[in-house]
Amino acid sequence: MILDGRMVANLRNGILKEKITSNNVKLKTAIIIVGNNEASLVYVKNKIKAAKKVGIETVLYHLDEETTEKTLTDLIGKLNNDKTIDGILLQVPLPSHLDDYKFINLIDYKKDIDGFTTINQGRLFQKLPTINSATPQGIINLLNHYNINVSGMNAVVIGRSQIVGLPVAKLLTDLNATVTICHSRTKDLSLYTKNADLIVVAVGSPKLLTADMVKEGVIVVDVGINRVNGKLEGDVDFEGVSKKAKYITPVPKGVGPMTINALLENIYKIKGGF
Amino acid sequence: MILDGRMVANLRNGILKEKITSNNVKLKTAIIIVGNNEASLVYVKNKIKAAKKVGIETVLYHLDEETTEKTLTDLIGKLNNDKTIDGILLQVPLPSHLDDYKFINLIDYKKDIDGFTTINQGRLFQKLPTINSATPQGIINLLNHYNINVSGMNAVVIGRSQIVGLPVAKLLTDLNATVTICHSRTKDLSLYTKNADLIVVAVGSPKLLTADMVKEGVIVVDVGINRVNGKLEGDVDFEGVSKKAKYITPVPKGVGPMTINALLENIYKIKGGF
Repeated sequence: MILDGRMVANLRNGILKEKITSNNVKLKTAIIIVGNNEASLVYVKNKIKAAKKVGIETVLYHLDEETTEKTLTDLIGKLNNDKTIDGILLQVPLPSHLDDYKFINLIDYKKDIDGFTTINQGRLFQKLPTINSATPQGIINLLNHYNINVSGMNAVVIGRSQIVGLPVAKLLTDLNATVTICHSRTKDLSLYTKNADLIVVAVGSPKLLTADMVKEGVIVVDVGINRVNGKLEGDVDFEGVSKKAKYITPVPKGVGPMTINALLENIYKIKGGF
Repeated sequence: MILDGRMVANLRNGILKEKITSNNVKLKTAIIIVGNNEASLVYVKNKIKAAKKVGIETVLYHLDEETTEKTLTDLIGKLNNDKTIDGILLQVPLPSHLDDYKFINLIDYKKDIDGFTTINQGRLFQKLPTINSATPQGIINLLNHYNINVSGMNAVVIGRSQIVGLPVAKLLTDLNATVTICHSRTKDLSLYTKNADLIVVAVGSPKLLTADMVKEGVIVVDVGINRVNGKLEGDVDFEGVSKKAKYITPVPKGVGPMTINALLENIYKIKGGF
């Protein structure tokens, strides 16, 4: 069965829009992008469009590739203090002369809609109320929609990034799954995946997970987005693995829309405090 | 082979003492204890004694069981601002009317020698320079001493506490082990432990890990401290498991002394900034 991220995201976006309009909530988010990384520009455009659709206002700060540390620091400081701004999103990666995490951590954690600041990730680690980063939260929302209870499951997360692998592993552990974090130095990946009830793949490597590596009835969540011969593909060999999987996300229209939805929900959530 | 925590801790304490005395470093740590929890009093006494031995001064604040939130808040605030105090340790658990993490998080993370604040655990999560909590760091130090390289190992951590299980899992992942976090909701623990190259048990349940659950040549780190018939015991059935293990920590004299040593090293480290 397909875990239809697009459909679920649309439903949740609809509910969010209804909440925003019927309660007449004013939400305004600042989006900062530095330079002209093509993929980043597309992501930002999509976020602005999605926000508009549910009634969230965005203000775009498109800074020059050569922006100095001081300029960016000052802008984030100004937005932190601006009471009309509810959320701040700093699109990464920044140009190489600017350190991503240094500037992410300048954002007031109460406006950190990406959930990337040290405080918000520390709060995730300590199981305190927080803003979770959008992709991990979107994955949990998707599993929830299909009433997939991960408690007691043998779960394998492939990839240990701070924005997907590690937080999704933490969230699954909090939901009582037994989680193994695999990565590039894992010796025999299939040793872990073959016994897994749930596999989350977040590596960025096409066809990393193939049918021979999974058991019948597995649940597969594919976070990868790879462009192969002009076509979008995930990290999973969908054709093969989907024959054995009980549930599987497609790429596109799986985790992607759930990520955008979770980001929008974060903006709403952050306004209420946490 | 026994991983002799007492011996390694003694060696490291000796080096630390030498550094402190020969560089004439003044280190002063405040220890706060609220109430008269018997185990806590013993722990605090041992920490003071250990600190003294390596040349670290401690100031004990032994507060009344009925201490109010305000009194404790004010004390921590005062110590944060006191330039003569390098480190602050708040002994937990606090009496039930005081929330442990609320007060831990009042400690300036730059004086947080336990590494329990949200910022320091967030920094661990984000792989930024930080103060690691003493038990996980002590375990890594012990493995290092015996030249045990965990990269590529199949590691199983049993227990998901914020002060041992989760941080040790993160440190092992950073060292390129493939880590599975098991806990009370794990369905078949031996399924995981039987394939493990390295097992860290931090649950607090005597004889949780038995010989039939491990493979020949396993490395076992036992964090448990249980009092059974007046005797200290770990979480591992030492007699059985030690026959199959390549390396194993005893209880006592294994992780315990390494924890105290790591705490003392934290005090030294924190003085230098991180």
